[in-house]
Parts: sequence; structure tokens; C-alpha cells
Amino acid sequence: MTFKSKKSVGQKVKKLNVKGAVKQEQILEAAIRRLSHFGVHKTTLTEIADDLSISKQALMYYYHDKASLVTSVLEKIAGDYIVEVKKLMAKNLSLNHLFTGLVDMRHSFFGRYHMLFIQMKTDGFTRSSSEIEATRKQAEQAERIALAERLKSEITQGTIREIDTDTTVQLMLDTMAAFAYSMQFTCPIPTEDQLQQLFDRQKNAVLLMINGITTK
Amino acid sequence: MTFKSKKSVGQKVKKLNVKGAVKQEQILEAAIRRLSHFGVHKTTLTEIADDLSISKQALMYYYHDKASLVTSVLEKIAGDYIVEVKKLMAKNLSLNHLFTGLVDMRHSFFGRYHMLFIQMKTDGFTRSSSEIEATRKQAEQAERIALAERLKSEITQGTIREIDTDTTVQLMLDTMAAFAYSMQFTCPIPTEDQLQQLFDRQKNAVLLMINGITTK
Repeated sequence: MTFKSKKSVGQKVKKLNVKGAVKQEQILEAAIRRLSHFGVHKTTLTEIADDLSISKQALMYYYHDKASLVTSVLEKIAGDYIVEVKKLMAKNLSLNHLFTGLVDMRHSFFGRYHMLFIQMKTDGFTRSSSEIEATRKQAEQAERIALAERLKSEITQGTIREIDTDTTVQLMLDTMAAFAYSMQFTCPIPTEDQLQQLFDRQKNAVLLMINGITTK
Repeated sequence: MTFKSKKSVGQKVKKLNVKGAVKQEQILEAAIRRLSHFGVHKTTLTEIADDLSISKQALMYYYHDKASLVTSVLEKIAGDYIVEVKKLMAKNLSLNHLFTGLVDMRHSFFGRYHMLFIQMKTDGFTRSSSEIEATRKQAEQAERIALAERLKSEITQGTIREIDTDTTVQLMLDTMAAFAYSMQFTCPIPTEDQLQQLFDRQKNAVLLMINGITTK
């Protein structure tokens, strides 16, 4: 299906003061709650406005239509994710702890949006809009660049080999993603134990990629 | 669906002389050709006998029913696969070349049975029978044990760290499998380019796991 916002991404935040920004954040939070429970098709702007005890007109001052609201929800999540990545990196952890910490952070971060993503997927929204895809790709790229920068600084310090940092980071993230995909294939609705096994595998795989097995 | 052979696995080969063993191999090869083209349900013992210009009775001397023939086909493939693994290991390659060679060998080996596996899957046979599952598990275990033995000997020689060889081999093979699963998820009918990308990723991932990125 196609799903196009009539407004360009980010345009609507430009003229907001602090009060407006807080209101906008409240709308996004309310939208996430509604969308997580009822999906995109069954959620109306009126219901979200009712949840916040504001008029539909007040809500539409921030979001002209459902399409732009859904896009903004996903932009918010992507933005929040990058904030989490930056926070994790600012801790100056060892490479081992950085990458296993990334698995843990992703677990708790995406756990919060688990139902939202299931609803979006059921509604056919995951790869539908070029805007949504662009938002996801931007977040992934920001994460890759941040991790590659870290590897570059390790090379400068002589703690890691002269590897191609971009392709190495990509391979490590691809490996984590491959385990996640393969779980969707073998058990589409994983138990808590199966999820834990997934995270353990992701951690062990990246640890092996960092440390290798050879003594050199 | 359930699919049970009435005979115990391997029982039928016991009393065969060389000529009988050759005939049995011819039957299995003919069965693989038929099954690859028409699937399990649409293949009859009579057709396979016709292909070999023998009577159905002569064929049934070796295989009492279709179930035992299909089981034997998969046992033959599993057995052949282990022979290929052992051949590869006998070359005494470096660890890097052993694991990238394993990716290449799997490619050419399973490429030969590509259509057979698609037909079996379409017919619902992949995980249907406990015998078929047991055969697959046996082959996987034999491969794991052979690779773990190799890692043990590397530890003795001091070329690799004191790792748990069983879990390390399992993780490396799981990573290769995860990339293959994730390809089935993202492109169920991959192009030759996409397959090549899969093999490259599998190779790069195991190479990184062997060599790591740290200088130590």
C-alpha cells in the first residue's frame, strides 16, 4: 500500500515554542499508545485528541492528517534511538561492553515499541512509505557512523587492526540482524527464553568478531 | 503431515553385495531426478523403475515403499555431505581457508539438490518425519565434531586461544545459518548476485570470528 504525507518531514516543528513542543510530544505519546493497541487503520485523530482532552482542531494545528502523524511517530522513535546509541557510546565502555551493551539497549528500547511494530506490520506499513524507509535508513546510518568512528579511534590507539571500519561495523550489525531475522523465521512469536537465547547469540557473535580465536 | 517408513533406517543395505549396492545407488540417483522434477506426491515407484528399465518388483526388493526410498535419498545426501566435509578437512587448510572453503563446498553441494529441497519443502516433508530429522541432525553433529576436533588441535599447537571448541563451532555455523535464513526472509527466491552476496557475508563473518579485530 502507499502512504504519503502531504507535508515535508520535520517542517511542522519549525515554528513551535517550548509549550508547543511539549504539546507535540504529548500528541506523539498518545498516538503511540493508540497505534500500539488498535493499529493505524482503526485509529482516528479525533480519538487521539479525546485522549488528551483537546479538540481535533487543536491536534490538527500540529498534524494535518494521520499520515503526517504516523511519520512523525516513527521519526520520534528513530530520533530517540539515536539518542540512546549516543548515550551508550558516551559511557566510553570497552569494545566488548559497547557491543554487548548495544544488544541490551536495543532489547529494552524496541521492547517498548513491540506492539506498535506488530500493528504497523499487520497494517502493511513497515516498508510502505519512502519517508518511513528514509527515516529508518537515516537512523541506521547514524548508528553505523558512530560505531565506525569508535573503531577508527581504536585503530589510532593501536588497540585494533587496520580494518575497513565501515564494512566491519556493517558486518557486525548485519550478523545481529541475521540472528533476529532467523528467529522470525523459526519462531515468529518467540517466548522470553527464546528471546534471551537470541540476545546471547548476538552478544557471543559480536564478542567473537571483536576478539577472534587466534592467538596471533 | 506424518511420513513414516515401516523399516528401520539402514536395515536394507545389510545383505547387499557389490552389484546390489550399485543397483541401489542407481535407484537413489533415479529417485533424486524424479523427486527433483515432480515432488514426492507425484512420483511413483513404477516410474522410477521404468526410468531404470527394471520391474517394480525388482525395485521393491531394495525399497518396500516410497517412504523408505525418500528416507534413503535423504540419508544418501547426508552421508555424501559428511564425505565432502571430511575431504575438505583432509586438505589441512589454514582455519581461514577451511571455513571459507566450507561455505564454497556447501554452495556447490546443496546447489545440486536445490530443486529436490524446494519440492520436498512444497510437499511439506522438511520437518515431517522424525527419521528425516534424525538424519539431518546426525550429519550436522558429525560436521560439528569434525570442526571442533580441528579447533582442539589448534589449541594444542597454541595457534588459537583456550576456547570452548563445541560452542564456538556451533556459533560459527549458527551465524552462517542465520545469514541463510535471513536471506529466505528478505528474498525467498534469490538471484545469483544475491546468493553471491550471501556467501560473501558468510565468509566475512567467519573470517572475522577467526581473526577478530583486536591486536591483543
